[in-house]
Amino acid sequence: EIDGVLGIGGGQGSAVCSHAMRQLPVGFPKVLVSTKVAQAGAGAYVGTRDILVLPSVADIAGLNRLTKRVLSNAAGAIVGMVEGEAPQEEVRPVVTMSMLGTTTACGLRLKELLEGEGFEVVVFHAIGVGGKAMEEFIKESGAEGVIELAVNEIGNELFGGKASAGPQRMEVAGALGIPQLITPGNADFINFLSIETVPPHYRDRKLHRHNPQATTMRLNREEMEVLGRTLADKLNKASGPVKVIIPRKGFSSWDREGGIFFDPQADEGFIRALREQLSGEVELKVVDLHINDPAFAQVLFGEFKALMGRVPKKSTRR
Amino acid sequence: EIDGVLGIGGGQGSAVCSHAMRQLPVGFPKVLVSTKVAQAGAGAYVGTRDILVLPSVADIAGLNRLTKRVLSNAAGAIVGMVEGEAPQEEVRPVVTMSMLGTTTACGLRLKELLEGEGFEVVVFHAIGVGGKAMEEFIKESGAEGVIELAVNEIGNELFGGKASAGPQRMEVAGALGIPQLITPGNADFINFLSIETVPPHYRDRKLHRHNPQATTMRLNREEMEVLGRTLADKLNKASGPVKVIIPRKGFSSWDREGGIFFDPQADEGFIRALREQLSGEVELKVVDLHINDPAFAQVLFGEFKALMGRVPKKSTRR
Repeated sequence: EIDGVLGIGGGQGSAVCSHAMRQLPVGFPKVLVSTKVAQAGAGAYVGTRDILVLPSVADIAGLNRLTKRVLSNAAGAIVGMVEGEAPQEEVRPVVTMSMLGTTTACGLRLKELLEGEGFEVVVFHAIGVGGKAMEEFIKESGAEGVIELAVNEIGNELFGGKASAGPQRMEVAGALGIPQLITPGNADFINFLSIETVPPHYRDRKLHRHNPQATTMRLNREEMEVLGRTLADKLNKASGPVKVIIPRKGFSSWDREGGIFFDPQADEGFIRALREQLSGEVELKVVDLHINDPAFAQVLFGEFKALMGRVPKKSTRR
Repeated sequence: EIDGVLGIGGGQGSAVCSHAMRQLPVGFPKVLVSTKVAQAGAGAYVGTRDILVLPSVADIAGLNRLTKRVLSNAAGAIVGMVEGEAPQEEVRPVVTMSMLGTTTACGLRLKELLEGEGFEVVVFHAIGVGGKAMEEFIKESGAEGVIELAVNEIGNELFGGKASAGPQRMEVAGALGIPQLITPGNADFINFLSIETVPPHYRDRKLHRHNPQATTMRLNREEMEVLGRTLADKLNKASGPVKVIIPRKGFSSWDREGGIFFDPQADEGFIRALREQLSGEVELKVVDLHINDPAFAQVLFGEFKALMGRVPKKSTRR
């Protein structure tokens, strides 16, 4: 029986170790000591998993005062994780939720309401790897309901942003028949990193430098229409129940009257394209609120309870 | 008394935690749980330090089955490191050595010879962050001698490669008066990552795709001359003894007869520029060997012992 994994490697070795570790579930103790991670970055090695990455600082060329300290800490870390007390297993029915800072006000309010009803809520950060981790969680760890407050990863995939979660994003829950409550949270923009990562053909677009490592771009009406149709195609494939609830007054904290990304015409294009393309199986409601209005979280809560068809009882799923 | 540090953060929080952690020495237990590291990469957060980075997978928005597992592991890791047995303190005099795969044959042979004489050898990987870590180690942890088998970081700084260790590389030991044995290991090339990271004005140069994340470029004669003069300027500033030993038959495993980077004229330009610019204080020897010839490691060993003026005894330095 294996309780934990410790890997040590340079460039090639880190890649090999990481590949093996990424097959293991979240929570399984895994430590990777790597000579390369400080240069190459962790993204390539951790993927969507909780791999503890420890830069070796010195080269792994024999034992010396530096490598002894680093390797001793790696050993301590894996032993500490394996011997540590496992967290108590949750027995509440679990709901996954995507969100970004721009829809956090809605997300935290809705989360509180759901927890008050006995749901457990697992939130994922919609920056690409977050959406991927959410899809994996839905598949592997089980989720009884899915709420999307961030669909920007779809736009990123379509229009070349840096926060794509791959072409299958928002299709896993549908394939598994899991109930989905969808809002177009953050549909108004796609993500880049530093301003230099914005491709030349987008340089004259409406850009927002949120911080040195986060630049966002407003999607225009034409792009919003493509996004609407793409979203509809994904939801039409779902084998479980799907509801789409649209906050007409804006999709993110930047997309509201007076906000830097406010563009009701582009948003209307999205709504129209989505409505035209959606099959009759999918319910669509437009609400005259902004996504971060407290009343909108309340609407979502009511719709979600109706979608689930019950006030949840204790789940036996683990 | 603080025995370890555990930090948890998103983009901003990770940056703040990381800044504090990087003030702590190598070996001091530090764990950073970060929502951003899987996207942004670890490089920005770990710097030259052994910070254990744990991607949070889910957003840190309350406790749930995922965040409980991840945070429980983080707690286990820091406790395991703090409670783990500290490695025995080394008491041998320590020598730092820079190297890359292309000079490893020389490095490992020389390391063995030095260890046989009672030295402890700490090797750093010359990929930029490695050279920076070496300079910090020389300053903070103490080194009684410095051996350079990799000067490619200087060329990277001069010519826009991706493995620069900053403009002060190879100046710390000189400022502290620590004896230095210098070879032009890997002087023949500079480093890029994937082939796309090579700037357009270098696209028609002699490039070598070592692996998908490592492309190197042969420096031409003119650049080698600039490198020689720059190196001389750095060494001329040293307040301690410096010896430069040059293997005329090639500076890396790629720079030898029949090798992809073999270019004796460019190397001669480097040697001439270096010799012309070096002050009389710095000893320079040209040896008719390749850097990875076993006899060259033997030459370096003899020169280093002479430079240190003694067969080392037990050091009290810690």
